[in-house]
Amino acid sequence: MASNKSNEAVESFPMNAGDGPYSYTHNSFGQKKGIDSVKALIVEGIAEKLETKPSQNIVRIADLGCSVGPNTFFAVEIIIESVKLKFQTDGIDSDSLEFCVFFNDHVSNDFNTLFKSIPLDNKYYAAGVPGSFHDRLFAKASLDFVHSSYALQWLSKVPTEIVDKQSPAWNKGKIYYTNSPKEVEEAYRKQFGKDIESFLNARATEIVSGGLMSFIIPGVPPSSKCTLTAVMDLMGCALMDLASMGLIEEEKVDSFNLPLYFPTPNELGSLIENNGYFSVENMEALVVHSTSDVHSTALHLRAGSDILITQHFGNHQIIEKLFDQFKNKIIESSVLTDPTYKPSYSLFVLLKRKSY
Amino acid sequence: MASNKSNEAVESFPMNAGDGPYSYTHNSFGQKKGIDSVKALIVEGIAEKLETKPSQNIVRIADLGCSVGPNTFFAVEIIIESVKLKFQTDGIDSDSLEFCVFFNDHVSNDFNTLFKSIPLDNKYYAAGVPGSFHDRLFAKASLDFVHSSYALQWLSKVPTEIVDKQSPAWNKGKIYYTNSPKEVEEAYRKQFGKDIESFLNARATEIVSGGLMSFIIPGVPPSSKCTLTAVMDLMGCALMDLASMGLIEEEKVDSFNLPLYFPTPNELGSLIENNGYFSVENMEALVVHSTSDVHSTALHLRAGSDILITQHFGNHQIIEKLFDQFKNKIIESSVLTDPTYKPSYSLFVLLKRKSY
Repeated sequence: MASNKSNEAVESFPMNAGDGPYSYTHNSFGQKKGIDSVKALIVEGIAEKLETKPSQNIVRIADLGCSVGPNTFFAVEIIIESVKLKFQTDGIDSDSLEFCVFFNDHVSNDFNTLFKSIPLDNKYYAAGVPGSFHDRLFAKASLDFVHSSYALQWLSKVPTEIVDKQSPAWNKGKIYYTNSPKEVEEAYRKQFGKDIESFLNARATEIVSGGLMSFIIPGVPPSSKCTLTAVMDLMGCALMDLASMGLIEEEKVDSFNLPLYFPTPNELGSLIENNGYFSVENMEALVVHSTSDVHSTALHLRAGSDILITQHFGNHQIIEKLFDQFKNKIIESSVLTDPTYKPSYSLFVLLKRKSY
Repeated sequence: MASNKSNEAVESFPMNAGDGPYSYTHNSFGQKKGIDSVKALIVEGIAEKLETKPSQNIVRIADLGCSVGPNTFFAVEIIIESVKLKFQTDGIDSDSLEFCVFFNDHVSNDFNTLFKSIPLDNKYYAAGVPGSFHDRLFAKASLDFVHSSYALQWLSKVPTEIVDKQSPAWNKGKIYYTNSPKEVEEAYRKQFGKDIESFLNARATEIVSGGLMSFIIPGVPPSSKCTLTAVMDLMGCALMDLASMGLIEEEKVDSFNLPLYFPTPNELGSLIENNGYFSVENMEALVVHSTSDVHSTALHLRAGSDILITQHFGNHQIIEKLFDQFKNKIIESSVLTDPTYKPSYSLFVLLKRKSY
């Protein structure tokens, strides 16, 4: 039986903890914007697709990759209110329904901060579940609704080929697959495919027959230049600048790669279809990430990559310099304003566990 | 619906976090000794009293007041192995049984450390549940087995009367009820009674009909002097010494009281009977706390009271001095060696939720 481990086989990439100025807590506005946009889609999805049972007393909900809040609490509130409404609409008394909410993230997530920020007026029994969502986290058929916001783009690990000097996929002088050899992009795509497959397999076992899963993941338009991936590449350029200045070793840049992948809508749809356990009830590509503000773009990236960079380069001193350089690169490149760069999507997906 | 709150109505008294030399992790040997002693009682209790159902796929277990480990993991392992054995004995295939374990403690508990120390070879799905066990923590009828080790002696709060200068129960110059006016002991007893009642009421709702609950709580022999309570009093004397030296204010000692109560076996039995939701399947008074080692006694008390004292006196500087003084008091008083002082018990209790 697979179960949640403290020493994970897959790697974890925690968001900045606590609630300081560079914390994820204070720099996840993009994500909040995304959740607001999909609020109506979740409400509608539950109203139309949730199967209510008159005998049901407990509704179990999980938010996978919840980080430290506050977005996870908004999402959970929306789901709970929507489920109650659906029971009422179906003529079932929802007053005696009780909700259990499982907040999941890696063992390295700051659960202490998360627990302290659970809203006082919460209408649910809260639990934290440590572990990778690429593995099993819950008992069989024990979840009614699973949600995940902006978490599935994180790969379980950097593809091994791209840090192998002997491989045609070696990603020299780069930290991402934008503008890299096609072998690099292919390695990323393969890893993402594997990760989505293991994610869907685990959830297929954990979600009840007919249960729902919604998730939001940043995505890219097919065959266009995209602001999001261009910006990732610019962080690599900023790191190479630091290497030229002698502040870090170039080899260290060669061996550093962001464990992130952004699929196109079709690509994601195919992966779900090939997996076969879920039917796609809805998929929408929302444009919510469009911003021309350099500072907030940099801050946003920083909340997600600070720890990764510090861990790899072993030197927290470079962070300020790096993000200054990164902001300059963004301004010089005009990727935020040039209309040939398309904005990224927030892909909203609503899946239903096929009957078993 | 009551539920677990981040800003608790009841107070919390966390054990020392992390794994430093004064941490609970490294100074909970007394508790481990207690768990070893009751291991056989848990195995036997589950073998004789657990009701197995052939259709059951998931067994849900909670450890309430789990602190940061490692004792909670030993206890949970024993329970899981015993449940599997019972299913096998009853001729039910236990291979497909899945176990969910909920580790509960106050929001202020160090869940990050707890999660990192979950054993790698765990055979269960782990979750952390923040909140006071004097309130509801879980959905109705959602737990099969509840355990609690050395946690129920912690009161939800210091009785208000004993810090009220106008009350006959004012506990001047003392931090505990040993050698205090009878009104002080009465106030402690009343608070303990209320706390056990709210604990049992909450669990009566959460545990399935016929489900089991085991707990271990330090207890005292009836009408005898007891080492454990005498030692608590000596810590008060040590604090008063610090006040005489001008290191802390005497008023601060007057307003400080340990939120701990140790019942006699009969007293605990009466509270459970009066509550009425559970039948007592077993109760045993084990002597496991007997030690004549001054240093380990002081260290043990320290792991549980460091934070309380630091918070109240607002000065971590006094801690070393206080525990030196405390050790001197223990040696001078000879409460660890004088045979008129009886050792405390570990009261092991096995309860069954009456049918509903």
